[in-house]
Amino acid sequence: MKFEIVRDELLDGLNDVMKAISQKVAMPILTGIKIEVDEKGMSMTGSDSDITICTFIPVERDGKELIQVTEKGSIVLQAKVFSEIIRKLPTNEVKIQVNDGLQTLIHSGKSEFKLIGSNPDDYPILPDVKDEHSFTLPSDFMKSIIRETVFAVSQQETRPILTGVHWTVEDEKLSCVATDSHRLARRLAAPEAMPTIPFSFVIPGKSLQELNKIIADNQDPVEIVIAEQQVLFKTNNVLFYSRLLEGNYPDTSRLIPEESKTSVKVNGRSLLQAIDRASLLAKEERNNIVRFSTIEGEKTIEISSNSPEVGNVEEIVEAISITGEELKISFSAKYMMDALRAIDGQDIEIQFTGAMRPFILKSVDDDSILQLILPVRTY
Amino acid sequence: MKFEIVRDELLDGLNDVMKAISQKVAMPILTGIKIEVDEKGMSMTGSDSDITICTFIPVERDGKELIQVTEKGSIVLQAKVFSEIIRKLPTNEVKIQVNDGLQTLIHSGKSEFKLIGSNPDDYPILPDVKDEHSFTLPSDFMKSIIRETVFAVSQQETRPILTGVHWTVEDEKLSCVATDSHRLARRLAAPEAMPTIPFSFVIPGKSLQELNKIIADNQDPVEIVIAEQQVLFKTNNVLFYSRLLEGNYPDTSRLIPEESKTSVKVNGRSLLQAIDRASLLAKEERNNIVRFSTIEGEKTIEISSNSPEVGNVEEIVEAISITGEELKISFSAKYMMDALRAIDGQDIEIQFTGAMRPFILKSVDDDSILQLILPVRTY
Repeated sequence: MKFEIVRDELLDGLNDVMKAISQKVAMPILTGIKIEVDEKGMSMTGSDSDITICTFIPVERDGKELIQVTEKGSIVLQAKVFSEIIRKLPTNEVKIQVNDGLQTLIHSGKSEFKLIGSNPDDYPILPDVKDEHSFTLPSDFMKSIIRETVFAVSQQETRPILTGVHWTVEDEKLSCVATDSHRLARRLAAPEAMPTIPFSFVIPGKSLQELNKIIADNQDPVEIVIAEQQVLFKTNNVLFYSRLLEGNYPDTSRLIPEESKTSVKVNGRSLLQAIDRASLLAKEERNNIVRFSTIEGEKTIEISSNSPEVGNVEEIVEAISITGEELKISFSAKYMMDALRAIDGQDIEIQFTGAMRPFILKSVDDDSILQLILPVRTY
Repeated sequence: MKFEIVRDELLDGLNDVMKAISQKVAMPILTGIKIEVDEKGMSMTGSDSDITICTFIPVERDGKELIQVTEKGSIVLQAKVFSEIIRKLPTNEVKIQVNDGLQTLIHSGKSEFKLIGSNPDDYPILPDVKDEHSFTLPSDFMKSIIRETVFAVSQQETRPILTGVHWTVEDEKLSCVATDSHRLARRLAAPEAMPTIPFSFVIPGKSLQELNKIIADNQDPVEIVIAEQQVLFKTNNVLFYSRLLEGNYPDTSRLIPEESKTSVKVNGRSLLQAIDRASLLAKEERNNIVRFSTIEGEKTIEISSNSPEVGNVEEIVEAISITGEELKISFSAKYMMDALRAIDGQDIEIQFTGAMRPFILKSVDDDSILQLILPVRTY
């Protein structure tokens, strides 16, 4: 293998691949990056066996030569040291050459590294993702779906299936649900050209968080290909594979109340800031629980918290409207702030069915994002 | 106590005082900030008993009213929760009022906090710094002196005196020296209006690092007042007290070689970058040691490192000039990079007196910054 490449391009590709690299892997070769070069370009693969990321740099883009290939071939190099070397090279031209055996020469300016590589034949082959089900979403839409749901997955391994987000395609519509059994986030969408056959799958929350870092905030398409145990997200130059979680995701639809006894419309950002402040006195002694009360006859909400050792706080938030029964309810400030951030500062509607029942939040304009929170019994 | 204050001013002062606050303090009251208000303004004091920081906000600045004092007084409030509250308040006007006893009301917009304060009489009094010795330096000069020396203090408590920087005033000149016994940094200066009586003191490295975060990068004067066991740095609105280290600082002048056998002039930044790259392969197996060789008959230096498991690296750096004996020497890449950063990218001169003797670095134009490093025996 022998080629010359533009350093900045190599670095961009490396930055993506590095997101799959972990120092805690069962197979030592996975601390390395597999590099393959042929007449079309260079591909790099990194994996922690749950996630596999593969980037491709073409020999030419927009008429500009990016890679000069003298001899094709492949090698596996230690990911951490290789990426640090590339980052610190003195010039934008890098020559990479595998000598006898596995010794790999990296040359730039007056800097010359010889790294001991590993045999590329020992690197695991890419997951076999046959094109069973697939559909396409714009990148920025994909990112917002992730942002609106992934925070609600369970952080505990007691029910592994809840550490993922449940994606369902049915009636040519998409539904994404995450819950840790204390709160739930649901995103509905009707993208164009969805498959007509229904199917569903559960993507690990961690995979979605890494994917979110890689895909750009633009309208470029991301193709989502689902196979038996894998999902593949395809963008222009990146293939992102994730294993799927096995098992049955619980039926969450019956958790969502259909009626409401109290309905509050309020500016999401004002409520978020008031709860953020109230939680300052709830953190240490009170498990981050704040109290929410409607004030009879007035269009105002009181948010309060009381911590005997530190002090107490009262916040008044003007509502747009309050209808139905008077209400006093307590809940986790963290869950409420997560939900309000997912709806992102718009005017929101909160529908309560009593102090001890789950309540839901959504935008006043739009039903596509729904957040559900279980209250906490305090009085 | 009852007053109204501009939030942003309060926050600026708090940010400075918070740098003295530690959660690991022997006296519980030191997790709090002491607030005092009178007709002149508001002062806040924070301390971890090693460092004490006191900020002052005047009632008026440049004709703009910053504080309206209704009733003077004082209180101690929990530093962490108080500063978080102030940071998150909804408006730029804050009313603070101590009610009966120690309960303190903080009011802004529709947000109302009641904090349980502590008795200000229980707060330790400020160190008594009598004006024994004092002199003045511009802030930016003070910052550069700190930056050029403090990194070389010892991180180990085995010889506590070496965890500080030794400041000496003699012949109306200032000398600042730090060493961890493997390397040494010395800054000489001849500021205006220095005291004629010689004296010296050792300031803890940690204090200087915190001070560096507080003083601005401008020419405003910092007055340095030395007392028995304390040093006080006075700026416009901040008093920064630090305890001094007790004991005799070792005589370091005899460590600095006066002759040299090999002298190398080279661009500091090129050398820094080459060593930074070479150290990539020296970190794990080699204790971060790199090898430095002059090449006979050529104006070039070779920096190299070899790590049997990972690979090796060779860097060629063009020197400006090399005179004297040929040289092969090994040293810590970290110490060398710290020293080169202190001299800050200028053309530098390195004077060696053999592979096993300490060597010195300085700017080619200027003797005021001197860095000394002990080599490592490898061959």
